[in-house]
Amino acid sequence: MKIIVLGGDGFCGWASSLRLSKKGHEVFIFDNLSRRSIDISLKVKSLTPISPIYERVKTWNKLNKKKIKFYKVDVAKDTVKLEALIKKIKPDTIVHFAEQRSAPYSMIDLKTRNYTISNNLISNNNILYLIAKLNPKIHLIHLGTMGVYGYDFSKYLVPEGYYKAKLFIKKNVINTKILHPASPGSIYHLTKAQDELLFQFYQRMHGLKITDLHQGVVWGTNTNETKMHKKLFNRYDYDGDYGTVLNRFIMQAALNYPLTVHGTGNQVRPFININNTADCILLAAQNRKKFDEVKIFNQLTETHSLINLANKIKKITGCKINHQKNPRIESEDNTLIAKPMGLIELGLKPIYLSDKLIKTEIEIAKMFEKRVDKRKIVAKSQWKI
Amino acid sequence: MKIIVLGGDGFCGWASSLRLSKKGHEVFIFDNLSRRSIDISLKVKSLTPISPIYERVKTWNKLNKKKIKFYKVDVAKDTVKLEALIKKIKPDTIVHFAEQRSAPYSMIDLKTRNYTISNNLISNNNILYLIAKLNPKIHLIHLGTMGVYGYDFSKYLVPEGYYKAKLFIKKNVINTKILHPASPGSIYHLTKAQDELLFQFYQRMHGLKITDLHQGVVWGTNTNETKMHKKLFNRYDYDGDYGTVLNRFIMQAALNYPLTVHGTGNQVRPFININNTADCILLAAQNRKKFDEVKIFNQLTETHSLINLANKIKKITGCKINHQKNPRIESEDNTLIAKPMGLIELGLKPIYLSDKLIKTEIEIAKMFEKRVDKRKIVAKSQWKI
Repeated sequence: MKIIVLGGDGFCGWASSLRLSKKGHEVFIFDNLSRRSIDISLKVKSLTPISPIYERVKTWNKLNKKKIKFYKVDVAKDTVKLEALIKKIKPDTIVHFAEQRSAPYSMIDLKTRNYTISNNLISNNNILYLIAKLNPKIHLIHLGTMGVYGYDFSKYLVPEGYYKAKLFIKKNVINTKILHPASPGSIYHLTKAQDELLFQFYQRMHGLKITDLHQGVVWGTNTNETKMHKKLFNRYDYDGDYGTVLNRFIMQAALNYPLTVHGTGNQVRPFININNTADCILLAAQNRKKFDEVKIFNQLTETHSLINLANKIKKITGCKINHQKNPRIESEDNTLIAKPMGLIELGLKPIYLSDKLIKTEIEIAKMFEKRVDKRKIVAKSQWKI
Repeated sequence: MKIIVLGGDGFCGWASSLRLSKKGHEVFIFDNLSRRSIDISLKVKSLTPISPIYERVKTWNKLNKKKIKFYKVDVAKDTVKLEALIKKIKPDTIVHFAEQRSAPYSMIDLKTRNYTISNNLISNNNILYLIAKLNPKIHLIHLGTMGVYGYDFSKYLVPEGYYKAKLFIKKNVINTKILHPASPGSIYHLTKAQDELLFQFYQRMHGLKITDLHQGVVWGTNTNETKMHKKLFNRYDYDGDYGTVLNRFIMQAALNYPLTVHGTGNQVRPFININNTADCILLAAQNRKKFDEVKIFNQLTETHSLINLANKIKKITGCKINHQKNPRIESEDNTLIAKPMGLIELGLKPIYLSDKLIKTEIEIAKMFEKRVDKRKIVAKSQWKI
């Protein structure tokens, strides 16, 4: 298949692009390199040294038969270029990672809130409009988040997007199926819930074929492909804005820095390994069955409370735990019952967190510990205005 | 009370500003005058001649004790100015009309789609953020639309925002209350559904006091206040983009132009007279009871199918009806069961459509018939891409 990967230079985008290429697909990466420029503006860098995109692609293309092509495109802004490229490439599938993906970054100030809203919604609207215009048969795979569900019904299993429902109004009872109620915890998560309304709209109006992957917190660094050469290395964010919680704990353990647990740490979160993320994108792309609605999959493999994760790492390394004031406005007794369902049916083989894998990740972090700027470890973005 | 009216130069905004002022409130209009510049870009003008905003305000202030102040502000862009003004004025209430409000305009092309999304969502995010920052007690009254509900459950009474619900997942039954499922019919309507998620978010995070008025199709021109002086006259949009259906029929009847019914005309829509719109804003502003959720009112007084309205006007005037290809993607057998509930409890006295009122409106339209550009009557914006 011909697959365009929007945001293919990012953490999940890069890993997924290589996996798709490895499996024989023709991959076209579109990226505005915004993650690299946000790194500069936040004065941080990936724990792992990452090569410039042109070098990454060149290295991959030397090592492999299937070539990747890179185009510098801003999906939210360069609509003319975007349209011309889609017309030229004629993709079967477009995978959309080109959204601002950090919850803390989305909460820094009014400017980052607005940037997150406009970048995420406009990029989506552009791609949906152009698919409807150029070829409604193109399959759009979008990276959503488990965070759209919130924790209001956390005593119950999280559905894959939809509930069977009975609605009551006066004496009427309406038997129906509804998109889950949304209860996002940050502006970033909110945009993903607003994205869902865009998908429902374009699906209803133009019959588009859309898969929305509600992803959990991604951990790990390299995949089978990114470790083939050091110039293919994936990024590893450890800072308070873009670092995901488990990767942050691992980096902290490698540095013998007390693990920064926000609040009690009783918050339960969904997790997935970066290798499994790449697996899921491949599985979603290969799923060409008839769609009569926006297809939603929960893209996680397991759930853990933050404090349990911290204790697990403490047990392995002997590091300390440092409870910090929670920067988020959230209940700290968030439970969560969630498991992958549709993706398992499609063939996902879960990689579960193990002591062995944690140790491997700590070794990777240790290799680059000199690159850490300790002032960037503590999360500074506050939910309170 | 001190009340800021965002978008107070527009069709509903101007009428409501004068009503609030008349009733003794201190009114501050913020507007970027975008409706006037969109008129220029679409090469249309209001059927009624409207004075520049400075003249409007000057005229009102001469005739009345309570003065209105006008500030040229773009709520989506001038965040620094917006913050400084809110700090200075210290309003009790902010009424938010500052969104792009035409469904056909939102569907012209990718540019107007994106403008509608970013203008509407960013203006809302700015105002919500600043209220949370400066004074969470400020009451925000937002103009939403009945169109967020869609027609999926149109055999049943439309709720005021929320349903009591039972949700089913595997063997679990969740008894809860949910925000209504959204099924918007255009990008414009979609942004109003996305706005609702913003309101839920800020209410949950910061306990804001928010009223969302889900308004129907507004008809009529002048209110008791705007007819006090010709320089206070309200705008009357008759063109295919901004003209609302009943006002368009009235203008067409005045010109003896066959009424443009889209498709069968069996589509049922909610309606409200512009005088009642102003009443509702006043009632919402005076409703200072404790809010434990985002308060949603359905702001309509009656429902009619388009063809019934056309026949009513045909009976009065003898004009013809011209069924045109429906530019929208929609079922033409949309039914709708809706009535005002909360606003009636607050004291709304509905003004129902009558032959007498239709005749009065036709007389107004006839006064200005020479201003009509007949090329602008037919709706051109297409839902199909």
